[in-house]
Amino acid sequence: MSASRLYLDWNATAPLSEAARAAFVEALDLSGNPSSVHAEGRQARAALEKARRQVAALAGREPAHVWFTSGATEAANLVLTPDFRMGRSALRIGALYVSAIEHPAVREGGRFPAGAVFELPVLPSGVIDIDALRQRLSTHDAESGMPMVAVMLVNNETGIVQPVAAVAEVVRAAGGLLVVDAVQAAGRLDLSQHASEADFLILSSHKIGGPKGVGAMIARGETLMPAPLLRGGGQEKGHRSGTENLAAIIGFGAAAEEALVDLEARNASIGVLRDRLEAGMMDAAPDVILHGKNGPRVSNTTFFSLPGLKSETGQIAFDLEGIALSAGSACSSGRVGESHVLAAMGFDPKLGGLRISIGPGTTAADIDRALAAFSKIAGRRRLAGAA
Amino acid sequence: MSASRLYLDWNATAPLSEAARAAFVEALDLSGNPSSVHAEGRQARAALEKARRQVAALAGREPAHVWFTSGATEAANLVLTPDFRMGRSALRIGALYVSAIEHPAVREGGRFPAGAVFELPVLPSGVIDIDALRQRLSTHDAESGMPMVAVMLVNNETGIVQPVAAVAEVVRAAGGLLVVDAVQAAGRLDLSQHASEADFLILSSHKIGGPKGVGAMIARGETLMPAPLLRGGGQEKGHRSGTENLAAIIGFGAAAEEALVDLEARNASIGVLRDRLEAGMMDAAPDVILHGKNGPRVSNTTFFSLPGLKSETGQIAFDLEGIALSAGSACSSGRVGESHVLAAMGFDPKLGGLRISIGPGTTAADIDRALAAFSKIAGRRRLAGAA
Repeated sequence: MSASRLYLDWNATAPLSEAARAAFVEALDLSGNPSSVHAEGRQARAALEKARRQVAALAGREPAHVWFTSGATEAANLVLTPDFRMGRSALRIGALYVSAIEHPAVREGGRFPAGAVFELPVLPSGVIDIDALRQRLSTHDAESGMPMVAVMLVNNETGIVQPVAAVAEVVRAAGGLLVVDAVQAAGRLDLSQHASEADFLILSSHKIGGPKGVGAMIARGETLMPAPLLRGGGQEKGHRSGTENLAAIIGFGAAAEEALVDLEARNASIGVLRDRLEAGMMDAAPDVILHGKNGPRVSNTTFFSLPGLKSETGQIAFDLEGIALSAGSACSSGRVGESHVLAAMGFDPKLGGLRISIGPGTTAADIDRALAAFSKIAGRRRLAGAA
Repeated sequence: MSASRLYLDWNATAPLSEAARAAFVEALDLSGNPSSVHAEGRQARAALEKARRQVAALAGREPAHVWFTSGATEAANLVLTPDFRMGRSALRIGALYVSAIEHPAVREGGRFPAGAVFELPVLPSGVIDIDALRQRLSTHDAESGMPMVAVMLVNNETGIVQPVAAVAEVVRAAGGLLVVDAVQAAGRLDLSQHASEADFLILSSHKIGGPKGVGAMIARGETLMPAPLLRGGGQEKGHRSGTENLAAIIGFGAAAEEALVDLEARNASIGVLRDRLEAGMMDAAPDVILHGKNGPRVSNTTFFSLPGLKSETGQIAFDLEGIALSAGSACSSGRVGESHVLAAMGFDPKLGGLRISIGPGTTAADIDRALAAFSKIAGRRRLAGAA
């Protein structure tokens, strides 16, 4: 990649941090399979369990309640299932309620049949509608099984923080289970505070500076567990078969440990840059819409719309200026469609959305460069509109 | 790991090859998400597609028919499902027939209900019983859907090559689908010859010298496909959601390319070492049983039993001599149980089995050292027996 590129798409993938990279590369020399009983296997096992403690600490949970997966998508598909076990007894989940702004990995409903997945509305502010949730759960058919509710702690497109504590209260009153996708919250909020009410948490390594290809499902205990998604050799105490992705897990652990260091101060510094960016954007284009600006947001994300600028056009224009940003989420194989998050917030789906997401590596000079590109692109748009 | 350790457990995990390691580590600098449309994303995508061509070449298939997964276990759980699609139409698989010596990732039956999974016997030689397969398929209830048969090309414990071409003929005559676990065959046999009849192939990266955490399902085309196992962002053309494990996939690609170079000569050299090992073992302990010695085997695996020596005891004894080998397969979190492969071959399940599996890095001196340890352990056993 040319040195002149500027990467402002940290919510899609954070660059691998130095600490995670070092741990990851060093771990490549561990030749053993963590499930082998010889010395090499035991050494690999010890390294694996250290990483489990590091990831547990990030979430404020017990190491024994962390299950490593190939990523957040697998973790979501693991936990989102009607088939649970409470010890040796089967426990049935009757329906899944997901917010309309969930990541597709959750919104698709995992292993629930389509007819058992219901969408919960969000308010125009981009925050989940608690009254609608309460209402919806009051009509849940308990005969079919418990209700499960999945709400993300931080939305990946807008950065808006969802009221998980209030959601948890409603879910508990309805006798349900709460799954919290904390992928975009990890390293930005203290999960031991903001997600302590979750029955299950979903985490991803590569969103916090760790390697791709690893994530975790974190539970409250070991008793209430979803039916395994990957069956086979019985790794992860039978809950997730498949040879452990050792080096990646070790890199994830290092990234998790690093994410906890100076969490508040780091995010405050990032917030100063983000505020500078947004102030400059409003100066350059007073009609810019900064989604979620007045509500609770994490400090690294700016999701904006410029009337008259399509997502695709905007993304290509920034790319030509050497700047990588995103039109909503990065997944779906390059599909640049309408944002389901903007639509859920009540905006005209034709209004394009663009996301700038920054991280610990972003500098004030980067922000100035992004602003220069923004001004140019916003100005051109006005010219085109006037023609 | 101390320099004095000797690793003879390549079937559990092959050490990361230099070429795979170099490609893998270099790929860590690709900051993009392969599904992002900006320059970083497109560069990541191009690297991903190169790896797809490399893995396709290893299997003698089309790149478009390779789907990357988090490993062979996920690939098995993806393809072993009653729910298929032929284009836009649903296609039902009525039952799964698996050989009794399949790896647990296949033997557990993936997404088939337990009642729809049937085990096929093997002959005392360790080779699948073709007549029994034909017989079994003749009683398949076609009303329930097509039959699916899963047979491994090379057994992970014994190294015995299974007659996939003959199996395929029987499966085709019964109108069924054939899934071939080629995990232990890749890099040891020419898959374009030995597995050309498979409808679906399963591969693992870390068994051929690539990184852990990645594998593949390879199909015949894009039309007949299993229902997705991981649902979400729609990556891998909708068949496998989740951010692509880019660096690991690139390392897998490099390992696949390397595995094809001098395939026959490399495996012949390994076979010379293995034969030297086995000759020495028979000299030192004439009562040693070398499983599958007289049938078709890959050249790197020796699976043996020493009457009077339990698997656990033997494994610990070799470990104390600084030698890592395995009691059957490595999975199942250190569980050292009875070998289901030996049992399927008709041996007393109490007869322990130990596996020595070597690779391109193994030297003649390593073999001599293994033989010295073997003689010592075998001798001690006789003394213990005489006491």
